[in-house]
Amino acid sequence: MADVLFPRMALIGIGLLGSSIALAAREHGVVEHIAVHTRSKDTLDRAEELGLGDSYHQDVTECVADADLVIVCTPVGVCETIAKTIAAHLKPGAVVTDVGSVKSSIVKQMAPHLPKHVHFIPGHPIAGTENSGPDAGFAELFIGRWCVLTPAEDVDKDAVAKLQAFWEALGSNVELMDAEHHDQVLAITSHLPHLIAYNIVGTAADLEMVRDSEVIKYSAGGFRDFTRLAASDPTMWRDVFLHNKEAALEMLGRFTEDLTALQRAIRWGDGDALFDLFSRTRSIRRSIIDAGQEIEAADFGRHIN
Amino acid sequence: MADVLFPRMALIGIGLLGSSIALAAREHGVVEHIAVHTRSKDTLDRAEELGLGDSYHQDVTECVADADLVIVCTPVGVCETIAKTIAAHLKPGAVVTDVGSVKSSIVKQMAPHLPKHVHFIPGHPIAGTENSGPDAGFAELFIGRWCVLTPAEDVDKDAVAKLQAFWEALGSNVELMDAEHHDQVLAITSHLPHLIAYNIVGTAADLEMVRDSEVIKYSAGGFRDFTRLAASDPTMWRDVFLHNKEAALEMLGRFTEDLTALQRAIRWGDGDALFDLFSRTRSIRRSIIDAGQEIEAADFGRHIN
Ligand SMILES: NC(=O)c1ccc[n+]([C@@H]2O[C@H](COP(=O)([O-])OP(=O)(O)OC[C@H]3O[C@@H](n4cnc5c(N)ncnc54)[C@H](OP(=O)(O)O)[C@@H]3O)[C@@H](O)[C@H]2O)c1
Ligand SMILES: NC(=O)c1ccc[n+]([C@@H]2O[C@H](COP(=O)([O-])OP(=O)(O)OC[C@H]3O[C@@H](n4cnc5c(N)ncnc54)[C@H](OP(=O)(O)O)[C@@H]3O)[C@@H](O)[C@H]2O)c1
Repeated sequence: MADVLFPRMALIGIGLLGSSIALAAREHGVVEHIAVHTRSKDTLDRAEELGLGDSYHQDVTECVADADLVIVCTPVGVCETIAKTIAAHLKPGAVVTDVGSVKSSIVKQMAPHLPKHVHFIPGHPIAGTENSGPDAGFAELFIGRWCVLTPAEDVDKDAVAKLQAFWEALGSNVELMDAEHHDQVLAITSHLPHLIAYNIVGTAADLEMVRDSEVIKYSAGGFRDFTRLAASDPTMWRDVFLHNKEAALEMLGRFTEDLTALQRAIRWGDGDALFDLFSRTRSIRRSIIDAGQEIEAADFGRHIN
Repeated sequence: MADVLFPRMALIGIGLLGSSIALAAREHGVVEHIAVHTRSKDTLDRAEELGLGDSYHQDVTECVADADLVIVCTPVGVCETIAKTIAAHLKPGAVVTDVGSVKSSIVKQMAPHLPKHVHFIPGHPIAGTENSGPDAGFAELFIGRWCVLTPAEDVDKDAVAKLQAFWEALGSNVELMDAEHHDQVLAITSHLPHLIAYNIVGTAADLEMVRDSEVIKYSAGGFRDFTRLAASDPTMWRDVFLHNKEAALEMLGRFTEDLTALQRAIRWGDGDALFDLFSRTRSIRRSIIDAGQEIEAADFGRHIN
């Protein structure tokens, strides 16, 4: 058990991320009271049935009142509204953070509205699954994963250290960087992969010469891997692309350029060019496994399950 | 234990596919003697150390002599040479098949050289992992997966039925289709996924504003999923694209067209278009899980390993 870092934690949004934080923070004893708010009554009731919090609030201002730590766990597109709504109700000295997959936009949406007397430290745990909602959460989600914090230069160092200790207690490694760089890094490691996955699944569904049933039957050839990312929450991902447009377009442009070169190599039967690229990419998986960010087992261990 | 279907089986190539067939055929008792040939002495010695066969042959003509079933398990680019070399040494009535990921090209490469007195039935088990070589094989690889056979119209029905029984004994479901259709189906369910995976991993490695170490650290955002396919054997995949050019280019063209539409939606902030596509793709994963071609667990079950 770690020490209590934040006596009262308020979670705004209680889907995959919110519920996982609730379970992990409870398990590791870093908070005493968990106050939960979410938009819909049904989700709030479900959170209560699951026992995720200590108090449940339809009114978000009530939820954040007296909280030492406020974590916004909603899709990124609603963060400005939330900031405006909660601003006047935040306790002096509270840490306000989020888990959104983009960071510059969160700063633009939230910072102007928050009072000077709170510590605003945007955050993003690089951890997730394709599932969403309060039933999808589990306490182990953050173990061994990285959590990026993007505090502005002038933010109180003790507050940052405390939030860092919180994420470390949940099992994460913490890295600080600026919001713009975060958005570039995540554009390639997360946003572009999701875009491509959604796209190929869409392309496959639209073919007239290959039936959907055939795509499904023969998906073990590789296609099924992409369907995991493409099963992620549509609202969350719509908001990511609306709010990380520049970096996503930049990475997409590079990807397309490279793909065009590959297309040319296929058309002209340039086996050496194909072999070169195909040889160069193997080692990166090894590095990811060695870095503890992927399991070693072949085929994601599917065969041993 | 099933009945012995082919007393003597010759495997040409003993990598992931060859070794998995050896182990599975032995386990299920559908062959009595397994003769192994491969190109290099080192691999042949390794196969012997692993006890994959009953006899080991540096000379492929010796390997196939007297075999009732010959399975070519090499990269597809060498199948013509193999067909020419073995043709005169095949036993009358033998079934000759392969496991290559493309089928029209295999027919073009092999059929003209094989004698009339053998039954040529091209095949493709839609089962694999990212690993290769004789150490990568395991007997369970084919369980619950589909194996496609593409015999010509005039091939002996009993021979086809016997090869079908062989794959079923190894745990597979068998489907017959023509070679051209196979190549279109696999272009979308396997070849394009691999091409895209190789491509994005290459794009990520070349970025100047994001370090490789960052790509590795934050790969759990989605990128790591692609590195599995991109860790596959370069020779195998070079040959696939050299030998399924038309269908691969066709699917790639459609993919790029769709991606351009998505790019436009991002540029113009068209949230509805993004949401529409992102909503449409979720159900296909459900279908794949229901069809038994994917595990149910979130995140490929990585967290439970
Ligand atoms: N999923 C991942 O893999 C992942 C990983 C890292 C970071 N993130 C980020 O984490 C955030 C949440 O993602 P998630 O996967 O937890 O999503 P989720 O499972 O879909 O949950 C979203 C939650 O936000 C609530 N919500 C939506 N609009 C709201 C509003 N206007 N006011 C209050 N609550 C609202 C939803 O409530 P109702 O049910 O009541 O509508 C739900 O409880 C997103 O910003 C995402 O970018 C996700
Ligand atoms: N990997 C998959 O997921 C998968 C799935 C379905 C089908 N396939 C198909 O299965 C075939 C084999 O793939 P694999 O994954 O088993 O590849 P692999 O593990 O790389 O094994 C290839 C084998 O072929 C041998 N070989 C290469 N050139 C040869 C030649 N000229 N003569 C004789 N042997 C030669 C190699 O021997 P040396 O070591 O002696 O060079 C090795 O034993 C390919 O056609 C592929 O398209 C693969």
